Amino acid sequence: MGCIEGDVVSYCLGMRLKAGLVFVSDSRTNAGVDSVATFKKSYVFDGAEDRVIVILTAGNLAITQSVISLLEERLHGPDRSRSLYGVKSMYEVARLVGDTLREVHAIDGAHLKSHGADFIASLIVGGQIQGRRMRLFNVYAAGNFIEASDETPYFQIGETKYGKPIIERVITVDTSLEEATKCALVSFDSTIKSNISVAPPLDVTLVPADGCRASVRYRVADDDPYFQMVRRAWGEGLRKLFTQLPDPDWAGG
Amino acid sequence: MGCIEGDVVSYCLGMRLKAGLVFVSDSRTNAGVDSVATFKKSYVFDGAEDRVIVILTAGNLAITQSVISLLEERLHGPDRSRSLYGVKSMYEVARLVGDTLREVHAIDGAHLKSHGADFIASLIVGGQIQGRRMRLFNVYAAGNFIEASDETPYFQIGETKYGKPIIERVITVDTSLEEATKCALVSFDSTIKSNISVAPPLDVTLVPADGCRASVRYRVADDDPYFQMVRRAWGEGLRKLFTQLPDPDWAGG
Repeated sequence: MGCIEGDVVSYCLGMRLKAGLVFVSDSRTNAGVDSVATFKKSYVFDGAEDRVIVILTAGNLAITQSVISLLEERLHGPDRSRSLYGVKSMYEVARLVGDTLREVHAIDGAHLKSHGADFIASLIVGGQIQGRRMRLFNVYAAGNFIEASDETPYFQIGETKYGKPIIERVITVDTSLEEATKCALVSFDSTIKSNISVAPPLDVTLVPADGCRASVRYRVADDDPYFQMVRRAWGEGLRKLFTQLPDPDWAGG
Repeated sequence: MGCIEGDVVSYCLGMRLKAGLVFVSDSRTNAGVDSVATFKKSYVFDGAEDRVIVILTAGNLAITQSVISLLEERLHGPDRSRSLYGVKSMYEVARLVGDTLREVHAIDGAHLKSHGADFIASLIVGGQIQGRRMRLFNVYAAGNFIEASDETPYFQIGETKYGKPIIERVITVDTSLEEATKCALVSFDSTIKSNISVAPPLDVTLVPADGCRASVRYRVADDDPYFQMVRRAWGEGLRKLFTQLPDPDWAGG
């Protein structure tokens, strides 16, 4: 339990493209191989007309669910500075999520430590407020955060490595929402094949630029025909591409 | 420094196929971004006629170099039970490597700990002794080890995740040495693209079954024509394959 990466129990991906925002999360959690369950890790806040905010969560489920519960409780509360619907900018949204995470740390951190558990949580926070630009943040366990840029238009949290190469190869800030969604599913396929702690259903949320609304909220089940087709075609295509590459002549017998 | 995966500074891959053994290692080490150097991590022991032994190393370079130095010093020493050329089986070879790692732990472990550093080292050990079968082991930092099987005919150590998906998709125990070498180079390409701590030159060692000799010891430089061709063709092929996959119709605007 001393290693953050050893406790990985999710894979979430967010992209901030010119065409809009793309969010995909898996829904597998586990606390050991005999305790595996399905929990959603995508939260869409669209109850105010002027904005849409999407949060993806990875890490200790008790921590991230507490953060979401506190944020939800305060949505319509008197203190607008603590409401996702009350703050004025996406920067303030990221700050509020970070502060809420710090609040949970103050409550639970020492107790987790006394049981030998680290405080492991990270969140992808993105969205748009009317009249302002789309933004995407990666909020760390310490409550600090960084923002996606045109050069690095995406964030991954949780089990990120298996699925990174395809994103690195095809995603730029000019990629369309459809292509980006396809790329995300290929990335999840590679991750699911390699890490048993990542599994469908996958929650996909698309937010086209300047609409301040999610245009798509789609749950990709394990038997989803499109996902099955992508997995099969990608696997077959990779093997064919690999076979067509010439062997190194210096490796010959 | 508390996390093994955070200190990853290598990528090594070993395969035990019916056709023989394949070993590939990178040669990048770093102790922070301002201290990057090239060190080999593949060691071939072929000074005895009846056997060939290959060791790949990942982790703390001071630890793994000490292990190799001790093994080399004792190759021709009086105590045959402590010589890679004296022990009777590949199992005893793996045991000897594990014991030597424990010896280094006894010397350095407490000192590393007092500086807040973990004892991080892992080794891939493979080879064949005349009249016996080829074997491949993964030796952990604690000196214990596991053996490759027909179902899982390969081991990766160090920065393993980026390069795993292609291996999972194409390698079986029936893969030829040439195809396996090609797969290894594709796997290293994906890793090199994603992790700056893994870099050429790559050391490739091939040991055909039952010859008890390395048939190929080849150093793949960054500008190696075959490696450059593979990297370019694989990247272009992946992007083409990706483009040809249909977009999800439910993601349309």
